[in-house]
Amino acid sequence: MAIPVLTDEHVGQLDYRAAVAWMQTALQSHSEGTLDAPARVNSKLTKGEFAFTIGAHNSANPYMGFRVYDLAHLHSPTRSEVTAVFNGRDGSLTGIVTGKLLGAIRTGAIGGVAISCLSNPNANILALLGTGLQARTQLRAACAVRHFHEIRVYSRDAANRNAFREEMSEHVPVDLTLTNEPEQAVRDADVVICATTSTQPIIKTEWLKQGVHLNNVGPKFKTGHELPRDTYEQSPRLVTDSLEQVSAFGDAFVLFGTPHYDRIGALSAMLDENATDSSISHDSSLFISVGLAGTEVVLAQRMFENHME
Amino acid sequence: MAIPVLTDEHVGQLDYRAAVAWMQTALQSHSEGTLDAPARVNSKLTKGEFAFTIGAHNSANPYMGFRVYDLAHLHSPTRSEVTAVFNGRDGSLTGIVTGKLLGAIRTGAIGGVAISCLSNPNANILALLGTGLQARTQLRAACAVRHFHEIRVYSRDAANRNAFREEMSEHVPVDLTLTNEPEQAVRDADVVICATTSTQPIIKTEWLKQGVHLNNVGPKFKTGHELPRDTYEQSPRLVTDSLEQVSAFGDAFVLFGTPHYDRIGALSAMLDENATDSSISHDSSLFISVGLAGTEVVLAQRMFENHME
Repeated sequence: MAIPVLTDEHVGQLDYRAAVAWMQTALQSHSEGTLDAPARVNSKLTKGEFAFTIGAHNSANPYMGFRVYDLAHLHSPTRSEVTAVFNGRDGSLTGIVTGKLLGAIRTGAIGGVAISCLSNPNANILALLGTGLQARTQLRAACAVRHFHEIRVYSRDAANRNAFREEMSEHVPVDLTLTNEPEQAVRDADVVICATTSTQPIIKTEWLKQGVHLNNVGPKFKTGHELPRDTYEQSPRLVTDSLEQVSAFGDAFVLFGTPHYDRIGALSAMLDENATDSSISHDSSLFISVGLAGTEVVLAQRMFENHME
Repeated sequence: MAIPVLTDEHVGQLDYRAAVAWMQTALQSHSEGTLDAPARVNSKLTKGEFAFTIGAHNSANPYMGFRVYDLAHLHSPTRSEVTAVFNGRDGSLTGIVTGKLLGAIRTGAIGGVAISCLSNPNANILALLGTGLQARTQLRAACAVRHFHEIRVYSRDAANRNAFREEMSEHVPVDLTLTNEPEQAVRDADVVICATTSTQPIIKTEWLKQGVHLNNVGPKFKTGHELPRDTYEQSPRLVTDSLEQVSAFGDAFVLFGTPHYDRIGALSAMLDENATDSSISHDSSLFISVGLAGTEVVLAQRMFENHME
């Protein structure tokens, strides 16, 4: 039987509710120790640099795999990625996913888990900063877990804003409100998704509503960060999907060497906590998205299982 | 256009003369600095361990890629591998090769380069120890570079020997002589290919003919080695395809910490030397095959180029 090779065309048909549910299960597996998720492995070449994000699921039907992308071509429109999954029993190849959508949907879906777990269940207003691929998948995952009545989208660029609204219109329950003022987007928002490539803070902490939940998808390094330092510092609840990856960033990570570093908790741990104490979700919170290894492999495995059916 | 995904069925049709020529060019590129070939990157999981062998060709048409295999399933009959090649200009995916044949043909073809470069051009007798996949590709590459009049194949197992003869008969110019005595295979042989999984030496140095060339494909570690230590020690010319990989083995490598370690030369350097001084090829020599990273990527790239034509 031929090995399935799925492309962005297949991945684009993924249901976001399913993707968020799979990622929530994957985070729980990681918490329970059945999902191996080591920090990324990088291989620097003269030109180009591969990043391998690797994972293994040690369940009754074990599987293992990786996703790979070239850091030197992150902004190339024609760039691609490869995700491969192997059967953990006999080392056979289960399938391959090509394209750049799987990784982005994985990240979006984990963002959806964070919003589901940490934001106010009655959240009304969503602010989205950024209109790239990550912004698209974050928006769709957010709409899969909350019923927003108002969605505001910020981008500096009018053409990007309009293209984004046109492309997203069929996937969101309300008309998108476009703005070129980050403050207009963020004021009074219950959930703020920051998915830009900006290395300069694009919001001010004082604009944020009490009880807001933020997803920080873009830069989070000392050399460049899309959120102001005091947004991290003043947030009562700092959460990430991978403490291993935060640790692997070393002193490059924006909070390294600050007292706030040790306050960062694992999203997977919050899932259990949330189940028993729903009051926590009304505090302000900041989800620092770094990419839990192995989750692309889980997502791909689930797609192959559905593909085979 | 769909990305080409080649399987063992395609790879099995490779012409060995072409593969050897491509590997010779790849070794020369490495020597000239246009082929990046870092040591393997391993990622250990709770169950299983991925080994990534990565390379990049920095020519006018740059490309980069990797091959990956799971060390925990090396002996699984259904195991597979993945080799992926990306365009170095824009990060697009050129193609994927699945299966376990590409890596083995790569290793065989480099063995062929070593035999072509280091063995007596008038070599008559070939001894092959081992009847696995590596033995198959070594044999076919050897026959692509030398006209052997006698080929002796050793295996402990009669069924393996007979299956090997039957499968190889269409690919070799003479009937294979089968034996269950390594000494019978090796005595008077001009070229000896050791491609076993044995961790105990299977020959004695005194059996070897003066001027013999050996390929050491199987174990070469302190904890287990298919050749006796004194075969390495007494060989006047020790050569490997990757000094980087030998170095990465660290103190696990059989010659680590001995005076012979520093005598190991790079096969790529011999290619130039050989071109200007043909006398060297009549000395005894021992090729320690460790796998030059990047060569699978070169082989795959060449296959995609032919596939597109």
